[in-house]
Amino acid sequence: MKITIVFGGSSYEHEISIVSAITMKKVLKNSELSFIFVDKERMLYLIEPNNMKSKFFSSASYKKSKKLSLKNGAFVVEKMFGTQELSTEVVLNLIHGRDGEDGKIASLLEFYNLPFISPRLEASALSYNKLYTKFLAESVGVKVVEYQHLSKNDPREVTLSYPLIIKPVRLGSSIGVSVVKEKSELEYALDVAFEFDSDVIIEPFIDGVREYNQAGAKSSEWELSIIEEPQKEEFLDFEKKYMDFSRDEQVSSAQLSVELKSKIQETFKKIYDPLFLGSIIRCDFFVIGGEVLLNEINPIPGSMANYLFEDFEAMIQRVASNLPKEHKIIIDYQYIDSIQQAKGKA
Amino acid sequence: MKITIVFGGSSYEHEISIVSAITMKKVLKNSELSFIFVDKERMLYLIEPNNMKSKFFSSASYKKSKKLSLKNGAFVVEKMFGTQELSTEVVLNLIHGRDGEDGKIASLLEFYNLPFISPRLEASALSYNKLYTKFLAESVGVKVVEYQHLSKNDPREVTLSYPLIIKPVRLGSSIGVSVVKEKSELEYALDVAFEFDSDVIIEPFIDGVREYNQAGAKSSEWELSIIEEPQKEEFLDFEKKYMDFSRDEQVSSAQLSVELKSKIQETFKKIYDPLFLGSIIRCDFFVIGGEVLLNEINPIPGSMANYLFEDFEAMIQRVASNLPKEHKIIIDYQYIDSIQQAKGKA
Repeated sequence: MKITIVFGGSSYEHEISIVSAITMKKVLKNSELSFIFVDKERMLYLIEPNNMKSKFFSSASYKKSKKLSLKNGAFVVEKMFGTQELSTEVVLNLIHGRDGEDGKIASLLEFYNLPFISPRLEASALSYNKLYTKFLAESVGVKVVEYQHLSKNDPREVTLSYPLIIKPVRLGSSIGVSVVKEKSELEYALDVAFEFDSDVIIEPFIDGVREYNQAGAKSSEWELSIIEEPQKEEFLDFEKKYMDFSRDEQVSSAQLSVELKSKIQETFKKIYDPLFLGSIIRCDFFVIGGEVLLNEINPIPGSMANYLFEDFEAMIQRVASNLPKEHKIIIDYQYIDSIQQAKGKA
Repeated sequence: MKITIVFGGSSYEHEISIVSAITMKKVLKNSELSFIFVDKERMLYLIEPNNMKSKFFSSASYKKSKKLSLKNGAFVVEKMFGTQELSTEVVLNLIHGRDGEDGKIASLLEFYNLPFISPRLEASALSYNKLYTKFLAESVGVKVVEYQHLSKNDPREVTLSYPLIIKPVRLGSSIGVSVVKEKSELEYALDVAFEFDSDVIIEPFIDGVREYNQAGAKSSEWELSIIEEPQKEEFLDFEKKYMDFSRDEQVSSAQLSVELKSKIQETFKKIYDPLFLGSIIRCDFFVIGGEVLLNEINPIPGSMANYLFEDFEAMIQRVASNLPKEHKIIIDYQYIDSIQQAKGKA
């Protein structure tokens, strides 16, 4: 299958998107891959597979690559005389954070009529914002950790009990996030979070809570990954983060009762269907008192959570062959024709 | 001011967007206008101002116009040899319904770094969906009419009392909307709504409720329109609808107490700021027992609700000069450089 991987973007997670894309090259061994890099100025470049090394981007060598633009139905390579279409069967949106997860890339691909694996526009806008994720969960009957929402100009009155965790509503990868143990630390943590976003979400920090990650998609049937109990550390340094986005070896399942496993899977399905059709996402759940609560949706998970699937490449192909179709709208100018006729009679 | 008006789109409201654009030509008399038509296949055409007549589109004559594409910072005209940038100071998104109101056009303009008047991506995704509009209102402390949400596969159990109004969550201009007087009519009305959308919202139908429309924007200060009490009719035929989207004469204010006027204005501001910065929207409110409830947000109102403003053209210019700036993200490859260094040392 010809898969075009779009990565980079004007995003705080630009660099880890590069790492994710390099991992895809290792993982999708039997596919014919093209790589499209969105640089920090949002120029599009076609990257030769043998140039898929992190230094190629950090050293700006990528700027010598061919530039691309978008036309109806295709990415096109700009040539001295005219253009040439890039042949692809499906585009994989691998931009973490802004541009990729907020819905911009999905909008572009939908507007230009390219088949793509990614959350669609609406799913992106909802899952990119941690406050809206709460609304979404509530609307499909999934429980969430209690929370309080504060806007930049709101009085800084917090009604939850300490310790707390403060998160900017729109960022991933722990950027701007603080754990606040007591009231004296609150102001500074809010200042930090408001540096990154106009809105923050405040939740109780539950030390030692059991966390489980479930990735999945829906092709002609459900494509659920194994469930992982991630290793937790309060702070990840850059090497650990790198490891996280370059993971390509399958992990083993968490030890779970049949009942809890089934509860996690059913909760994932409620979140996913139908809003996330066409995408591969990872949901991070908390289990408290036997109840499954949604902590976070990763609409474009690091390295596409490939390490959670038994045969990631085959799964990608099945998802690509079962993408949701855009609702067809017929435009026949009946309305304008009627007006014209009415005018003619007058 | 050089204003580029984008209209048409792959939308049920394609035709009324053409009517809105023609109205803009009448209203924006002192501006230098360019018109970009998005046809039903989403091809972009540059329309000469003297061709801005409805028949030019319904007869497909527009296909002889120059084709456009998007590059970083500009729309470009495709020429035999090379391309030419279209000069513009601000783009006005005038596509009603899909593409325009769902956030796709906003995404494109933001991705390609063009200044534009329109709700941004997140504001679009929330206001395009009537269910999410309820969430949004609740999150900023604005009351809404009570409602029930049904997905296509949910059991059709309705707990509200009749009469009801049934609406597909994602469409405007009354498409797929029914008033249901008694239980026997429910199934059919739901069938109709589910023809258009996977989700519907059900509300009590409040006959004779007082409705008020407030349009506005924020430039360096609030730009609030007069408040109109719209004429209501249960069904609008095509000529009435046409009138509605081609309105260009200022109307007179509704007779309101100072207190109610102020309540409506404050409610508008709560909805608008900061989510809708950069856009001109119209909110339709119900007043029940002295309370102001949000009925609907029109993120791209018909003919931009020009008829509600004292000096629409001057207001547009002030909004264009005070557009929100995208948050600047610095990408400096610190993270990749650190990995490279760590590897070097190993």
